[in-house]
Amino acid sequence: MEDVYHPGLENVIACETQVSYLDTDHEEIVIRGYDLIALAKQKSYLEIAHLVVYGQLPNPPELEVFAKQIQQAKEIPTAILDILRALPKTTHLMDYLRTGISALAGSDPDLDDRSKEASLRKTIRLLAYMPQLVAASHAIKEGQEPFPSRPELSYSAQFLYRLTGAVPTHQEALIFDQALSAYIEHEMPNSTFTARVIASTLSDLYGSLTGAVASLKGTLHGGANEAVMLMMLEAQQADYVESYLLEKLANKERIMGFGHRVYMNKMDPRALLMKEALAQLVTVKGQEELYARFEIGEKVMLREKNLHPNLDYYAAPVFYLLGIPIELYTPIFFAARTAGLCAHVMEQHEHNRLFRPRVRYTGTRGLQVTQVNEER
Amino acid sequence: MEDVYHPGLENVIACETQVSYLDTDHEEIVIRGYDLIALAKQKSYLEIAHLVVYGQLPNPPELEVFAKQIQQAKEIPTAILDILRALPKTTHLMDYLRTGISALAGSDPDLDDRSKEASLRKTIRLLAYMPQLVAASHAIKEGQEPFPSRPELSYSAQFLYRLTGAVPTHQEALIFDQALSAYIEHEMPNSTFTARVIASTLSDLYGSLTGAVASLKGTLHGGANEAVMLMMLEAQQADYVESYLLEKLANKERIMGFGHRVYMNKMDPRALLMKEALAQLVTVKGQEELYARFEIGEKVMLREKNLHPNLDYYAAPVFYLLGIPIELYTPIFFAARTAGLCAHVMEQHEHNRLFRPRVRYTGTRGLQVTQVNEER
Repeated sequence: MEDVYHPGLENVIACETQVSYLDTDHEEIVIRGYDLIALAKQKSYLEIAHLVVYGQLPNPPELEVFAKQIQQAKEIPTAILDILRALPKTTHLMDYLRTGISALAGSDPDLDDRSKEASLRKTIRLLAYMPQLVAASHAIKEGQEPFPSRPELSYSAQFLYRLTGAVPTHQEALIFDQALSAYIEHEMPNSTFTARVIASTLSDLYGSLTGAVASLKGTLHGGANEAVMLMMLEAQQADYVESYLLEKLANKERIMGFGHRVYMNKMDPRALLMKEALAQLVTVKGQEELYARFEIGEKVMLREKNLHPNLDYYAAPVFYLLGIPIELYTPIFFAARTAGLCAHVMEQHEHNRLFRPRVRYTGTRGLQVTQVNEER
Repeated sequence: MEDVYHPGLENVIACETQVSYLDTDHEEIVIRGYDLIALAKQKSYLEIAHLVVYGQLPNPPELEVFAKQIQQAKEIPTAILDILRALPKTTHLMDYLRTGISALAGSDPDLDDRSKEASLRKTIRLLAYMPQLVAASHAIKEGQEPFPSRPELSYSAQFLYRLTGAVPTHQEALIFDQALSAYIEHEMPNSTFTARVIASTLSDLYGSLTGAVASLKGTLHGGANEAVMLMMLEAQQADYVESYLLEKLANKERIMGFGHRVYMNKMDPRALLMKEALAQLVTVKGQEELYARFEIGEKVMLREKNLHPNLDYYAAPVFYLLGIPIELYTPIFFAARTAGLCAHVMEQHEHNRLFRPRVRYTGTRGLQVTQVNEER
């Protein structure tokens, strides 16, 4: 073992988990035993969050309690909003989020309690805080005040309202809910791994999630959904997409929104889910031309590079037609993933082993310190 | 490969590195080819930081430039101090530090530039900021204002002055400098691994260090130096240490400051360095009884558990006799490690491969969604 170096830990099994699994043989995303796509089509984000966090789908009374607990969790303390206001406006939106989550730790009464019960209470608070924090970060960075809460709305409808200031239609809320479900949990991407590595020192949930935001900010991880939308807006119209992409490929530029280390042969099933949602939205909004742009892009990339779209590719135009500013796409990804991250941190704490790998040293050896610094 | 699960990634080689290596066969800590203990005895912390960051020890003009660059880096922006003041006083000191580092990102002009040159500029800023941030966090949490800078002092002397408000003697500054050197870099502990995992998404240096603070906060990683000191104060005097420890062992309580996953058969050479420094300090301070407490503790643990002290065990009383408040020991560990963390992040960015391991799924399969929620 000691002698084999595993770049990027590719194919190394680093965790045992009961939360989720990417079954690449059957191209299925397994969430606590269920198929994620079936869940997203038939259950709400909150029901799936309950499944991810507690290990089982809620019955109607359990769902009511769960929704009420999140509803009744405190609003973000004003001190945290003051901290966001004090950040320089040059701060990246994901760094607002990172700083905000880090700062929230100090007012959590359960912070240092790593019992399952305390972690569940913290998870409920984080599920309540995250849509507020995402929306408040964006508003404050833009020099505005966050929209006031609308507690009569469902979780997803209120989240979407916080982002746009408009109460969504039932269809819009349902599609946004499905998008959140698509992002809720996905085995062991870098951000989830980061959260578990941090948690393995018995550090707390807020610290683990702070590290996960830092990871998701990286251009090789989150950010692809934003890049996809900017690209398709730059392409201007469906007729230009093919030549636009061919030119980028000729220049060896990276096209975001395609391929995934794990799904190699088929389309990410979450992408298909969002493509169906997009088809519904473009009809209502009279934006069929936008749908055509994405479908042409999909065909060109399959023909030229044999690559299929991933979730980010079709989530981007869905968010766009829901009226969400583009720079919010990665923060929304993070907010949706909160349930999954909390479940992984709890699992890590329950069956903990400190992550501490070794290295292969490729530097020099045997150098001698010759000149002593007597002046120090 | 796919079928073997590696709990905690023990003995898995996750990185190639030229920064440092724990040679367990020879019990040597190799830093860029040199023995860390020889470096700490003969070179200043800043010289070793230059070695860690640039890959070579500086000649006198290079050292002068390096020290001047750190000296001339800006003070922490007042907006960051305002953010620290806005944190609830219930915030853990390590969470002040985590929030502060995260917040600093937004005012760095090189934030999104991952070139080597830009990373070196950021490293110099972070080396300048970190002692200020540690001292300011502590002062503000205590309801006080940070001590003003004393730019005429050396890096380590000014750091110690910021922590205590007293200009140290030459001997005190030298011993503190050695302690910083002992903590500067140590291969791939959880915090360094966290920083590299985050950096591998091409996320930035501030995000990587924010995650590393979160990791170091965990009781299985940092924090041991503080726990050691509290324990030895609780033991009250040398005569009581043996019975105090035996009672703890009988109650199966964990004794901090002993053992290390990597050094199994001998004493951590950094612990020996700090033990020698402690011997000097107790004589000057007339605190020989404190030295006796630690030496008795060492003997009892060797006899009872066959465990040797690690760095934290002997660094704790050194910090204590230097007049440093106990809750600052782990933040100081982090500040000293800044050079090592920055070197690892730069190396990760230069030879990057995204960290994305797999899992072994131990949950259920094949569950069907039966009841559709039509109300969403």
